[in-house]
Amino acid sequence: MCQLLGMNCNSQASITFSFTGFRQRGGRTSHHVDGWGVGFYEPGGCRVFHDDQPASESPLAAFLGDYPIPSAIVISHLRRATQGVRSLANCHPFQREWMGQPWLFSHNGDLRGFEPALTGPYRPIGGTDSERAFCWLMQELRAQFADRVRPVGWAELAPQIALLTERIARHGNFNFLLSNGEALFAHCSSKLYLLQRQHPFPTARLLDCDISLDLGRLNGVDDRMALVATEPLTDAEPWVRLATGEMRVFVGGETVWRQVDPRTQAFAPADEREALAAN
Amino acid sequence: MCQLLGMNCNSQASITFSFTGFRQRGGRTSHHVDGWGVGFYEPGGCRVFHDDQPASESPLAAFLGDYPIPSAIVISHLRRATQGVRSLANCHPFQREWMGQPWLFSHNGDLRGFEPALTGPYRPIGGTDSERAFCWLMQELRAQFADRVRPVGWAELAPQIALLTERIARHGNFNFLLSNGEALFAHCSSKLYLLQRQHPFPTARLLDCDISLDLGRLNGVDDRMALVATEPLTDAEPWVRLATGEMRVFVGGETVWRQVDPRTQAFAPADEREALAAN
Repeated sequence: MCQLLGMNCNSQASITFSFTGFRQRGGRTSHHVDGWGVGFYEPGGCRVFHDDQPASESPLAAFLGDYPIPSAIVISHLRRATQGVRSLANCHPFQREWMGQPWLFSHNGDLRGFEPALTGPYRPIGGTDSERAFCWLMQELRAQFADRVRPVGWAELAPQIALLTERIARHGNFNFLLSNGEALFAHCSSKLYLLQRQHPFPTARLLDCDISLDLGRLNGVDDRMALVATEPLTDAEPWVRLATGEMRVFVGGETVWRQVDPRTQAFAPADEREALAAN
Repeated sequence: MCQLLGMNCNSQASITFSFTGFRQRGGRTSHHVDGWGVGFYEPGGCRVFHDDQPASESPLAAFLGDYPIPSAIVISHLRRATQGVRSLANCHPFQREWMGQPWLFSHNGDLRGFEPALTGPYRPIGGTDSERAFCWLMQELRAQFADRVRPVGWAELAPQIALLTERIARHGNFNFLLSNGEALFAHCSSKLYLLQRQHPFPTARLLDCDISLDLGRLNGVDDRMALVATEPLTDAEPWVRLATGEMRVFVGGETVWRQVDPRTQAFAPADEREALAAN
């Protein structure tokens, strides 16, 4: 199991506070030590930071915890290797371009026997099931909208992504965050929590380290933010667990599309499976 | 005119010393203030850092100047906007995947009237002539080697890249650095310098700031490194100016392929052209 963190807001916000808590799970409060990454959609473009060191010890992660990057969408990931060695090429989020948009993808779960034919332009650089699934997803979306000359909007993308997701999710847990910079797509197979923040903003306290922040001082009455994470990041805020098979699309800091596919099932996480097998 | 810096070595080396001098040109010793970027090919993969702030003032550039990232190939770029606004999406190096390899590209120059048909999978994310040229180059390489299922080696790539380069270079100065992580391809239209470093290593002194480094203490007798830059970075080292139309391929810290296309010409740089037009 890896750890996911996603953010979408209606204006640009910095994720330094949440990221400071999140990165503790990369070695200090949890064992996701096989690298990490974070991608930011800023007004002028998209950039991604990767590191194969544990996020709790990484100087680059410490730098990003102190360096605000105002963004409308952020996707972050802490890796605990199940498939693919510990290396930079296997760190999420993965990135590909489609119709002039930079797409990012991070996955939590473990896909077994998912070996689709990659006949399109996207091939994995690393050795993970996650990047393979991302390449296939993008390949199928390209094929689905092959007649288009401009980027496809989220309202058309969402049902197609949901259909493709259901096919992949038959092979194992497929909790993911995906974005093209316009919308944040989130899917829950086994575990994903959502927090909707808006006025009045509370003082939030991180669960992974002893830091509190008065969010009311940083946000205006019109600000709205959706946070998605494998585990809640703060206490005393109303984190909601998504259902198995639930896909959400976030735009402007709130849910604009939601669907639960009843066919999707949750699998036992890889580490639990290994523990069972060892008994 | 932008500024290019490339490095290839036969073992992994850190570029912190050269980068510390180079980034001064982004606002302090020169006027390339419209963003910067640097891409590292490390043993486990490739990662790119971008920023739309001047490199001499950017906290991220300062961090990278202090944080050694051992790499076999590095490509860095300081931008002075001629086409495309100042934004993250217009910062080099640009990145695309082909056959599971991450390709990076940085360009110095200004292409006029280069509007090729982009019918392949690659589209520009930003608005520069440089990214357009990169997308076209990758599209044509894909088409040329469409029957391949594995990455193509540099010996086959080099003549094809040289042919495509000559076509692009008719439209303006096309000084560039390109890599897939196996080889560093460099082309000179108007200005590019090469420095070959090997045993015995000197003490090098940066031209852009008062820092010296005894390279003999950091390198072994078998180490070899090729540095390529728009302007020499150090004094008292034998920087060699490449010829107009010259393309070089570097592998293992030295030139493995070289060709000069006599058809390629140097254009007056955009800023000089504007100065002439204003007279």
